[in-house]
Amino acid sequence: MRISELARRAGVPIGTVKYYLREGLLPPGELTAATQARYSEEHLARLRLVRALVGTARLSIAETRAVLAAVDDPATSAVDTIGGVYKALPDTAQGNQPDLAPARAHLSRWGWPVDTDAPALGYFARALDALGAAGFDTPDDLLDRYARAAAELAEQDVADLPTASTAETVRFVVIGTLLLEPVLLSLRRLAHEGASRRRFPREKD
Amino acid sequence: MRISELARRAGVPIGTVKYYLREGLLPPGELTAATQARYSEEHLARLRLVRALVGTARLSIAETRAVLAAVDDPATSAVDTIGGVYKALPDTAQGNQPDLAPARAHLSRWGWPVDTDAPALGYFARALDALGAAGFDTPDDLLDRYARAAAELAEQDVADLPTASTAETVRFVVIGTLLLEPVLLSLRRLAHEGASRRRFPREKD
Repeated sequence: MRISELARRAGVPIGTVKYYLREGLLPPGELTAATQARYSEEHLARLRLVRALVGTARLSIAETRAVLAAVDDPATSAVDTIGGVYKALPDTAQGNQPDLAPARAHLSRWGWPVDTDAPALGYFARALDALGAAGFDTPDDLLDRYARAAAELAEQDVADLPTASTAETVRFVVIGTLLLEPVLLSLRRLAHEGASRRRFPREKD
Repeated sequence: MRISELARRAGVPIGTVKYYLREGLLPPGELTAATQARYSEEHLARLRLVRALVGTARLSIAETRAVLAAVDDPATSAVDTIGGVYKALPDTAQGNQPDLAPARAHLSRWGWPVDTDAPALGYFARALDALGAAGFDTPDDLLDRYARAAAELAEQDVADLPTASTAETVRFVVIGTLLLEPVLLSLRRLAHEGASRRRFPREKD
């Protein structure tokens, strides 16, 4: 297909497609004339992935490039991809390294691996730091139920990963891990509104 | 206390404190001389809240101002604050209005209020859109377990809200809703790494 059809099918402006091509997030098409290239279904799939990362997951171009590098690495595995993707994310990649001891103490209480070098450990530690800095007391039982919910979701997510082909596994990891985060947060916010309306009913409710 | 002590106790550079003062995120101190002002414990609490919103929750100055306006509204209630805070968040405040029908269909299946105008509804609808655009199939049972987890967490969060004073309720709502989001996401990521290591063990593991 031509670039115009590629853009239309992905629901992306042509200018954006050209920008992704220039930035190397999308591989070049097959040249059919000096100024014309042809694109495949694989280009379309990649374009949709880039769109999801930049648009929904709100990654920068550099972060998207890092995630795609993890995805494209031929030596990759599902485990490495999860690590590579999370390492490329803004929340874990920037900021000062916080004190990891309180985070590790919680992991230990839950029987999770404490010696992990997972990028999410720093993210968790920074989240705890911020709660403390804001003067918010986080009792163990609060964190315990968040950990329990996270573990149940993650266990089933990983059990659902398709393994017929590495490419498919990796696509599921990237999309499933990143794009389900806004699903989880938006549902929690909706549930907060519902629960607080039940607890604090107003006249008009 | 002087501005230097305020900054030190909040762990924020003095220049940043002055910036927040100029932007009106922090109320001015009580003038004790032409060029000197005194700050109270309330200033410190507010500064920590601003720091948490701008630093951890990654809100822009304008978004932080909108959240604080919801918090400071004397007519506010816990329910209104949750709505006001969520309305001010970037994820829900920007982007085209998506098709809400699929999102409402899911809420209906869960017995959640379908006629809600909660800002999180648009956020949820956009999250579903993005999954679809990325070619990711989201079967009902996947969304069902995310909804169940979100509802359980939210129900307990709201049950835990202190109600002795409105100010304290509101502070809990703002900090608890926003700052527990990174806790939830980071724990899910840690759990993903753990679950995938168990399912796909490597030699060195």
